Amino acid sequence: MYKDLDTSLRTIMTPGPVEVDPRVLRAMCTPILGQFDPQFTGIMNETMEMLRKLFQTENHWAFPIDGTSRAGIEAVLASIIEPGDVVLVPIYGRFGHLLVEISQRYGAKVVTLETEWGTVFPPQTVIEKIREVRPKIVAMVHGETSTACMQPLKEIGAASREVGALFVVDAVATIGGTPVKVDEWMIDAAIGGTQKCLSVPSGMAPITFNSRVEEVLLRRKRVERGLAERVTSAEWDDGVIRTNYFDLSQLMDYWGPARLNHHTEATSMLYALREGLRLVLEEGLEARFKRHLRHEAALMAGLEAMGLSLYGERVNKLTPVTAVSIPAGIDGEAVRAMLLNDFDIEIASSFGPLKGKIWRIGTMGYSGRQKNVLHVLGALEAVLLRFGAKVNAGKAVQAALDVYHDK
Amino acid sequence: MYKDLDTSLRTIMTPGPVEVDPRVLRAMCTPILGQFDPQFTGIMNETMEMLRKLFQTENHWAFPIDGTSRAGIEAVLASIIEPGDVVLVPIYGRFGHLLVEISQRYGAKVVTLETEWGTVFPPQTVIEKIREVRPKIVAMVHGETSTACMQPLKEIGAASREVGALFVVDAVATIGGTPVKVDEWMIDAAIGGTQKCLSVPSGMAPITFNSRVEEVLLRRKRVERGLAERVTSAEWDDGVIRTNYFDLSQLMDYWGPARLNHHTEATSMLYALREGLRLVLEEGLEARFKRHLRHEAALMAGLEAMGLSLYGERVNKLTPVTAVSIPAGIDGEAVRAMLLNDFDIEIASSFGPLKGKIWRIGTMGYSGRQKNVLHVLGALEAVLLRFGAKVNAGKAVQAALDVYHDK
Repeated sequence: MYKDLDTSLRTIMTPGPVEVDPRVLRAMCTPILGQFDPQFTGIMNETMEMLRKLFQTENHWAFPIDGTSRAGIEAVLASIIEPGDVVLVPIYGRFGHLLVEISQRYGAKVVTLETEWGTVFPPQTVIEKIREVRPKIVAMVHGETSTACMQPLKEIGAASREVGALFVVDAVATIGGTPVKVDEWMIDAAIGGTQKCLSVPSGMAPITFNSRVEEVLLRRKRVERGLAERVTSAEWDDGVIRTNYFDLSQLMDYWGPARLNHHTEATSMLYALREGLRLVLEEGLEARFKRHLRHEAALMAGLEAMGLSLYGERVNKLTPVTAVSIPAGIDGEAVRAMLLNDFDIEIASSFGPLKGKIWRIGTMGYSGRQKNVLHVLGALEAVLLRFGAKVNAGKAVQAALDVYHDK
Repeated sequence: MYKDLDTSLRTIMTPGPVEVDPRVLRAMCTPILGQFDPQFTGIMNETMEMLRKLFQTENHWAFPIDGTSRAGIEAVLASIIEPGDVVLVPIYGRFGHLLVEISQRYGAKVVTLETEWGTVFPPQTVIEKIREVRPKIVAMVHGETSTACMQPLKEIGAASREVGALFVVDAVATIGGTPVKVDEWMIDAAIGGTQKCLSVPSGMAPITFNSRVEEVLLRRKRVERGLAERVTSAEWDDGVIRTNYFDLSQLMDYWGPARLNHHTEATSMLYALREGLRLVLEEGLEARFKRHLRHEAALMAGLEAMGLSLYGERVNKLTPVTAVSIPAGIDGEAVRAMLLNDFDIEIASSFGPLKGKIWRIGTMGYSGRQKNVLHVLGALEAVLLRFGAKVNAGKAVQAALDVYHDK
């Protein structure tokens, strides 16, 4: 009645989830180990070590949350926000709003700063606000996939530290594709995504945090797990982290030498993440970032040669995602459908004010391959011609090839 | 520097995570699809349909939470508990305490009822408490892996409904291994586990809930996602579900026809779950439950023939987990280590008051195979002899074989 999985082999050129590296797929096939098997705890430790390199940090704590990217964001915010805390969120796209929403749900007084979609903040604007508001937490998105913009963070980290604020960065879209220098930029907690530049399936969220965050966690009252004496207290306690699953203080005891039972680690996803990290470290961070720049350059050259307009400020463009304006008179969704049905290519639309106005094309991780970039350019040109759009026929693939051939 | 995964092929006879069916491992190797690809949303719908059959329910809502089992428990409790709500938790082992802890974190006034570990409640005891307390929610564990006991639920479900309480059941350890009749037992929300009787890796938590739960969700104020107008309100609002990731009302919009973007579904884990469900439905629920009874019987016969004492009341034993007392003078951890290192077998210890007193041996899902049961019995006998324990040598495997040969 239910058949064997029989899916099309798509070329996935979205801001994620993107194509999974075949080595990662194979790693997931490995028969599992128990969570307290010494071989498995060894794999957990090794993964922490590799994550530190990915995040370019000396932090002790670097481990995945067993959930999708926003689970990592919620784990960090839920564990450090106490009701009434002031959280400053500079917003330049859809995922800034997510930081606001999560912070509010945990009782924060959120102060926002907004800039037009397609732009980022001059660091000085954010710095002045930090000095004015003196928040407990500054939470910010590094790469906004909704607008394909990337916020420079370094000076903001320094300003946050200056006023004693914790600097929390959503690096979901950037980790593994463009530099995320946790220590150098004075980021106190960072959250990465697996299904984007790491080319690992969605389902885990690597995070790292430093001793400043750890101090907050340990200062907050810890709920002892399953102790009968707590049962008699029905009082709400503001100091308690309001979630069990995302309580980073419990997760430290699970990932640390105590190995206190919390959840059951998601074995096969951990194998996937470990293999994805191994691929990153084998390629080398710098080489990987260069590769992302190269495919971005080829894609942009192709799109412009075709006669399309890129969306957003070029100077702060998010490397692994390119936003392009949908030509006037063209139905963006019809183009996407034809790309999917006739060419097995997926590109993305966008959110909110940009819905129907731009397409977003990713060149992330394993999806960032010359073959894919040339295929998407050729296909987009063909579909646009089919829909009667004015494009410079025959130019796009040539322009991309020029980039690849260093001409 | 970091090597290819090179793990031992363990015989995993714990209460989970257990061995993953090879067909499930292979399903995870499938190249992924984007989350809004029509092929993928088709797979999501198919998985919902199969989950309804697993839970034996007509509920519309049945989908996985992207996290481990306790993520499913937290999603249900977080979405229905409002601060001050009275939650009744009858506790007969470690995981009852988890229900208490999660409920307290979300501001519930928890009332508990406890019985000695190794026993369960006479339904009448719980029913009387329900009538006395008249809670908003009754939360209970169906199968306690910590003690290998299983609570009869049917009459408790009816009593909960009688007073208008929602009946929430942690069926993590039982789903797919022994009957969980959601509709017949009047369970309003149930949470299953993947890494136990379903033989799928840890990392997803299938849940189901009915229209009574849905009403509560829809009555609670919904936080609109990422709307700037909310940003101005810094007030804490008691009606708001306190988590974004586990907000079931948002998840309904993601799993329902609106397909509103929430998290990015964990593709490969969903493929794994779908294949695990396909295996369950191909085998048939009744046949699968019988198989679990058969391996339990063989294991118990073998352990008793060896001269060991089973722990806990036999009449309410949890089918897929068998608890056995560690013989006096034997170091339970040394036995477990030798089983692991010499025989590649993992069995479990226990928690709290049972630490060092019992071993727990699972016969769950794909780990429930004749080969595995005979291997663990032979190995345990050998190790106990090695440690100088008094056992009836040569009896255990014979007794299990008698069960398998229907003698």
